Amino acid sequence: MTTGRLYGIGTGPGDPELLTLKAARLLGEVAVVAHFAKRGNVSNARAVIAGMLRQDVIELPLHYPVTTELDRHDPDYKVQIAGFYEAAAASVAAHLDAGRDVAVLSEGDPLFYGSYMHLHVRLSQRYPTEVVPGITSMSGAWSLAGTPIAQGDDVLAILPGTLPEEELARRLAGVEAAVIMKVGRNLPRIRRALATAGRLPRAIYVERATCANACAEPLATRDERPAPYFSLVLVPGWQ
Amino acid sequence: MTTGRLYGIGTGPGDPELLTLKAARLLGEVAVVAHFAKRGNVSNARAVIAGMLRQDVIELPLHYPVTTELDRHDPDYKVQIAGFYEAAAASVAAHLDAGRDVAVLSEGDPLFYGSYMHLHVRLSQRYPTEVVPGITSMSGAWSLAGTPIAQGDDVLAILPGTLPEEELARRLAGVEAAVIMKVGRNLPRIRRALATAGRLPRAIYVERATCANACAEPLATRDERPAPYFSLVLVPGWQ
Repeated sequence: MTTGRLYGIGTGPGDPELLTLKAARLLGEVAVVAHFAKRGNVSNARAVIAGMLRQDVIELPLHYPVTTELDRHDPDYKVQIAGFYEAAAASVAAHLDAGRDVAVLSEGDPLFYGSYMHLHVRLSQRYPTEVVPGITSMSGAWSLAGTPIAQGDDVLAILPGTLPEEELARRLAGVEAAVIMKVGRNLPRIRRALATAGRLPRAIYVERATCANACAEPLATRDERPAPYFSLVLVPGWQ
Repeated sequence: MTTGRLYGIGTGPGDPELLTLKAARLLGEVAVVAHFAKRGNVSNARAVIAGMLRQDVIELPLHYPVTTELDRHDPDYKVQIAGFYEAAAASVAAHLDAGRDVAVLSEGDPLFYGSYMHLHVRLSQRYPTEVVPGITSMSGAWSLAGTPIAQGDDVLAILPGTLPEEELARRLAGVEAAVIMKVGRNLPRIRRALATAGRLPRAIYVERATCANACAEPLATRDERPAPYFSLVLVPGWQ
């Protein structure tokens, strides 16, 4: 008996119409669909592709044991997360061993800051594997904002908003264009780092890009209300 | 009479199945499709979407007057290219004024190092405009290579291969992960910069990602044959 195939499938930034033709086709074919979510929550990627699956699809929810309750540098966090990815890989492998194709959903693009990569490194040497790229949240954001992000010789830095303020400011000062990911509760620190680097006047805050309730506005004048996890900041290089 | 709508449409990295559902729908609806190409060549983006257009579609090829024959820092190059974008915007505007919707094709993603942005900045204030993001060539490349590019606190730098060697080396040394775009004839210089920065052992060369003749291989052992324009180099952050 042959094993199933593993697919890492990018579901894009939120609008179901931003799935690729290939992702839509494969989601209608696979026997098993796995998706990550915080315990008690529905997977955002799963919500995007509702209605595209086989009637008899087997769903495999993978629930993080912990997200923001523990600091990610806490040794206990690292132990719990590593154990979770091992167990998740084993549960996907059980379906592959039984000959069933498994699609692992990934918001945005699977190999770009996504949880899927933790399964990929554990399984792709053992099973036939294919990654279907997805539209990243940053492409969704600059398309929504209608903002050219980089051209010509511009260097574009992708910066996690989790970095320390001084490091963010230093890195922002050295590039023509930047995208700051993982904004959420880091927004006040990100705003200060942009001000220090002299880049706040051009920074654009984008929330839930391509979803029905999306918005884009200058960061300088955005109020201090908390930012949702699905938000990012663009610093366009184009002048 | 109302004007037509302008669409900047990303056609992705090469595989027609990597178009988004939205791009495929719009391409079957619009009256006019514009595409950039070197004079005497067929647009790569046009080739990707062959067969998706209306039978009665009006095609508007936009031919660069010059590409690599002149140095891009040459004043004559700048004059010719600026005049070209002005004329291209005027020819698109003529269709919009006549009430026809125009889709401007863009390889990869329209606002990410794409020619479309030169039309966008000239027209989007005057006409209803929508940008449909596309899969970037870099997403296509790391998906093909099966290489997680960045995770957690990794900083990812997008570097044009046209940068001077010393600057490339300096910027490569300061980040966890990098993508070098616009490789082509710059490959020997890029290889030296990677060696200087100590990043050559992990660098992956990818050619024509997601096309039928795609390949990915370690840059360190790739031979010195010329690289095609559609190639890039990945330096994964994931260890």
